[in-house]
Amino acid sequence: MAEKELPGGYRGPGPGEIAVVGLGPGGEEEMTPRARRALERAQVVVGYRTYVDLIAPLVKGKEILISGMTAEVDRCRQAVERAAGGARVALVSGGDPGVYGMAGLLLEILAAHPRAKGIKVEVIPGVTAATAAAAALGAPLAHDFAAISLSDRLTPWEVIASRIEHAAAADFILVLYNPRSRGRPDHLRRARDIILRFRSPETPVGVVRNAGRKGEETWIRDLATFLDLPVDMASTVIVGNSRTKVVDGRMVTPRGYRL
Amino acid sequence: MAEKELPGGYRGPGPGEIAVVGLGPGGEEEMTPRARRALERAQVVVGYRTYVDLIAPLVKGKEILISGMTAEVDRCRQAVERAAGGARVALVSGGDPGVYGMAGLLLEILAAHPRAKGIKVEVIPGVTAATAAAAALGAPLAHDFAAISLSDRLTPWEVIASRIEHAAAADFILVLYNPRSRGRPDHLRRARDIILRFRSPETPVGVVRNAGRKGEETWIRDLATFLDLPVDMASTVIVGNSRTKVVDGRMVTPRGYRL
Repeated sequence: MAEKELPGGYRGPGPGEIAVVGLGPGGEEEMTPRARRALERAQVVVGYRTYVDLIAPLVKGKEILISGMTAEVDRCRQAVERAAGGARVALVSGGDPGVYGMAGLLLEILAAHPRAKGIKVEVIPGVTAATAAAAALGAPLAHDFAAISLSDRLTPWEVIASRIEHAAAADFILVLYNPRSRGRPDHLRRARDIILRFRSPETPVGVVRNAGRKGEETWIRDLATFLDLPVDMASTVIVGNSRTKVVDGRMVTPRGYRL
Repeated sequence: MAEKELPGGYRGPGPGEIAVVGLGPGGEEEMTPRARRALERAQVVVGYRTYVDLIAPLVKGKEILISGMTAEVDRCRQAVERAAGGARVALVSGGDPGVYGMAGLLLEILAAHPRAKGIKVEVIPGVTAATAAAAALGAPLAHDFAAISLSDRLTPWEVIASRIEHAAAADFILVLYNPRSRGRPDHLRRARDIILRFRSPETPVGVVRNAGRKGEETWIRDLATFLDLPVDMASTVIVGNSRTKVVDGRMVTPRGYRL
């Protein structure tokens, strides 16, 4: 039986598909062709306002469902419901959709949804904030690293603190996501104090705001002094390991080659 | 004074530039436009054979300097010397050049090189193996994770083992790079045994070979059984945290949303 396109591009009556699309840091220059193609192919685009704004020219004329920052569950349900109705949906996520992004939640909601049967799902990776920020700073992530979100909205602070402690004790480079917001102005200082129990105050710290997009700003300081920087939710903080150094104004973690 | 293009595209006599280009997992579909543009712009392409082969059609007709897997230092020196002579050089790296890639080494060598003055360097991020593999498996990296290389070529095994232990103790998801090679067939088992001291044998483990490129293969097993899989140097291994589960054949780590 031939598939019939209905008005508005909807196919009926079979199930549609969802692409969870990693936009990368934000600029079109950093979005993969695979991500771009998925946006072009989509009939319905679902996302948080900031990310949808970044791709506005690419999705012009499509049906767009925008929601606020804490409405992740709603977005996933909308995506599933539209796909259940036969649509091709793009659920967009900043950076990589699998790293503190929408992919996991979507897969959980899909598995529990009564109308999910037959919906195809594809997760499309993107350049994640950790490596976009690292590239802007130099090469701080050239050795083993730990990525930790400082947001305690979904994770108890004790768990976060324990992870910071273990990562610092084992000399991991630390990448701190969601480092500071108005609701938790003090988490970054608490994280810093834990790290200082294991690492020198001169340990290099890099901060990148708006990594890989318009208005990108970078700073390289150290554990003793970086708290004064204007770190916010659009920032990524990278704390070096015991060997990280600043070389010609760039933050570099040696891998151990003999030079 | 206007810059003059010399035959062969070399500019003389000023210093040139080096772009450290992250190719992503390998397919052109996953390479960012920024990376592609840097390759097009380059006069000289320097890289490890496997990666240069992946981009052969894009760099046809350019001068190409290929070397073997352990010749990283040579590659960086070549790049610096060509740039010192005025060339636009692309130093290519698989995945993201900052994650166990060429960016850190290049910056170190550049800083120590007598002819480096004036050479411009740009690090161009790419989709790293961790997130390419995660996307192929589902969403295993949706919470805090630690990236650890099991190669002891440049890092003592005791350091690696300590990092595995701390990461396991703090319930990080683990991403294991360079998980197994002929020279160290046993590291993966030793890593697994350390993790098993903290995590259940039923903990999901995902393995992706050739993530994001031709011949991609994925497996989802658990800590008790995954060692039988054909893990090699082209593989990435992701060990779930205590909450990671398998949902409709996909590996998912919940972030903690109430559903």
